[in-house]
Amino acid sequence: MEEYLGRIEPADGAAMRAAAERQSQLTKPAGSLGVLEELSVRVAGMTGSCPPEVPAPAVVTVFAADHGVHAQGVSPWPQEVTAAMLANFAAGGAAVNAFAANNRVDVRVVDVGVATPVDQLDIIHAKVRPGTRDLSVEEALTEDEVRAAIAVGFDLADRLIQDGYRCLLTGDMGIANTTASAALIATFTGSTADVVTGRGTGIDDATLAHKTAIVQDALASHDVPATEPLKALQAYGGLEHAALAGYLLGAAANKVPVILDGVIAGASALVAQALHPAVIDYCVAGHRSAEPGHAIALKTLGLQPLVDLDLRLGEGTGAVLAYPILTCAVRALAEMATFESAGITS
Amino acid sequence: MEEYLGRIEPADGAAMRAAAERQSQLTKPAGSLGVLEELSVRVAGMTGSCPPEVPAPAVVTVFAADHGVHAQGVSPWPQEVTAAMLANFAAGGAAVNAFAANNRVDVRVVDVGVATPVDQLDIIHAKVRPGTRDLSVEEALTEDEVRAAIAVGFDLADRLIQDGYRCLLTGDMGIANTTASAALIATFTGSTADVVTGRGTGIDDATLAHKTAIVQDALASHDVPATEPLKALQAYGGLEHAALAGYLLGAAANKVPVILDGVIAGASALVAQALHPAVIDYCVAGHRSAEPGHAIALKTLGLQPLVDLDLRLGEGTGAVLAYPILTCAVRALAEMATFESAGITS
Repeated sequence: MEEYLGRIEPADGAAMRAAAERQSQLTKPAGSLGVLEELSVRVAGMTGSCPPEVPAPAVVTVFAADHGVHAQGVSPWPQEVTAAMLANFAAGGAAVNAFAANNRVDVRVVDVGVATPVDQLDIIHAKVRPGTRDLSVEEALTEDEVRAAIAVGFDLADRLIQDGYRCLLTGDMGIANTTASAALIATFTGSTADVVTGRGTGIDDATLAHKTAIVQDALASHDVPATEPLKALQAYGGLEHAALAGYLLGAAANKVPVILDGVIAGASALVAQALHPAVIDYCVAGHRSAEPGHAIALKTLGLQPLVDLDLRLGEGTGAVLAYPILTCAVRALAEMATFESAGITS
Repeated sequence: MEEYLGRIEPADGAAMRAAAERQSQLTKPAGSLGVLEELSVRVAGMTGSCPPEVPAPAVVTVFAADHGVHAQGVSPWPQEVTAAMLANFAAGGAAVNAFAANNRVDVRVVDVGVATPVDQLDIIHAKVRPGTRDLSVEEALTEDEVRAAIAVGFDLADRLIQDGYRCLLTGDMGIANTTASAALIATFTGSTADVVTGRGTGIDDATLAHKTAIVQDALASHDVPATEPLKALQAYGGLEHAALAGYLLGAAANKVPVILDGVIAGASALVAQALHPAVIDYCVAGHRSAEPGHAIALKTLGLQPLVDLDLRLGEGTGAVLAYPILTCAVRALAEMATFESAGITS
């Protein structure tokens, strides 16, 4: 991991200045493409070129894992649903498959820690252990397990970029993963459990109160400071959060933009930011999830979501939905005429 | 026009109920696709089928015209920019061209009333008159001119749908068109000039105050009630607003979804709604423009924008940006596995 951290550099300021200057010459009123102008400038900074190439092809990687805290009744869904959904992804029947097919994004599915066997599925097998330990009674992972899961993410990012992908998107699947996300977000944003714990896939008031109490107690007992990202992953997991943090490091090390999905990705990005602040230069917030901790995470990350449509599914759906907005922003910067080339004077 | 109005029927309630029922069976927590679930239900209602076919191919039509009120100094841009931008559209150098190429949307450009000659351009020539009259001193259009411009829009919608398009997007170009839009939005929403008049492409405080006063005086002198949409178009124009209203009528008459761009489309949709309320069943709000009158128009239309990224360019850019969100919503409804087919029980 230290090798990866050493490869990460901040975004290229000269390319960003050139992109901002180019934006001012394009055939439109200054600033009239709103958020897309800044987005195109950021991509210039990530890739170190102006105009940047369109970030394509793209791939969404769904990191799947289970959570020991599921035993505490934080979700109405049985843990076996994680494995069943992996079969659904592999068969092309999930929401992320429909969105990805629509938006020309490829899909990869990675078992980084599913509790039940999924050996028979045509997915990437990189199981570190079959689910985390229960964060409410012990540490979810050992340090070795955390490092192994991070390596799954950054090795895969390296491989995908070697294969030609020029935009990585995050995806996730794991019953009870919003509980671990809440603990991580509280750790890195200094928030209390009640403001970062949400209804996940849709729990009732009593389950929400129970889930919030579990997060609160875990924060008190593990008591990890925001400066200790590896210890936070040890305390709370999950394996997919660790792998996603590694995936973000890998994208940043290769100067490739990465689009974050929802609250799981937001929690993982906070871990990655604590490992190396410049990682966030390469991150685009795909959407704002309905889960309350997500907006809090995005604020600390300093990222503005592109889409805000009350999605709370995960899988990478929000990131895939946002991908064409990113490519539109870059194509406008690259392909529009300038006032001079179009012969227009104001 | 009366023939078109007679062809418009409300959305199909049975198809909408079937789509809502199907949404509840798909492999995701209930409601977890947020706004996209309702959107897919609406498209089922528009097309009268469940699941609906993916609304493709799509075309964005940029209706271009000029405004006599430009003489009052409401915009810093010379009127000739309208024609210059038409040349830019035809050459593929504008923002809408870049977005449309990215999102697989075709572009059509229509001269429905540009003040300067554009005969040499390879666009659709349907000029009703070379710009409107100055709404601050007289009626912008005659009733015959209004009806002719509406017919340009609905005849073109018919033709595009005969050519195979299954989703129409609105676009517009015309220096000073936010002034006419403000007057129309005030008329149909009961708002005062100060809350619906904005900075358009970016004017200073003094020009904004002057523009607001012109809208206020025009509303007082023409004094058109909200029940008189044709008279409102006569009073304020513009030719592109009339054509866009016709285009929306044409989409609705053919049961084809239409994505609205920004404030010009919003003003035109209010006109169309006054002509036949069921037109709005076929309209999707692409985005929310930074122009203040747009949010007010959307509220009266009862439409929720899909994208909100501070765009204020027009041309159809916001509609094109939203198009993949619409197709993702429909593809999820059509292509996702059900819990039963995937063998998942909760």
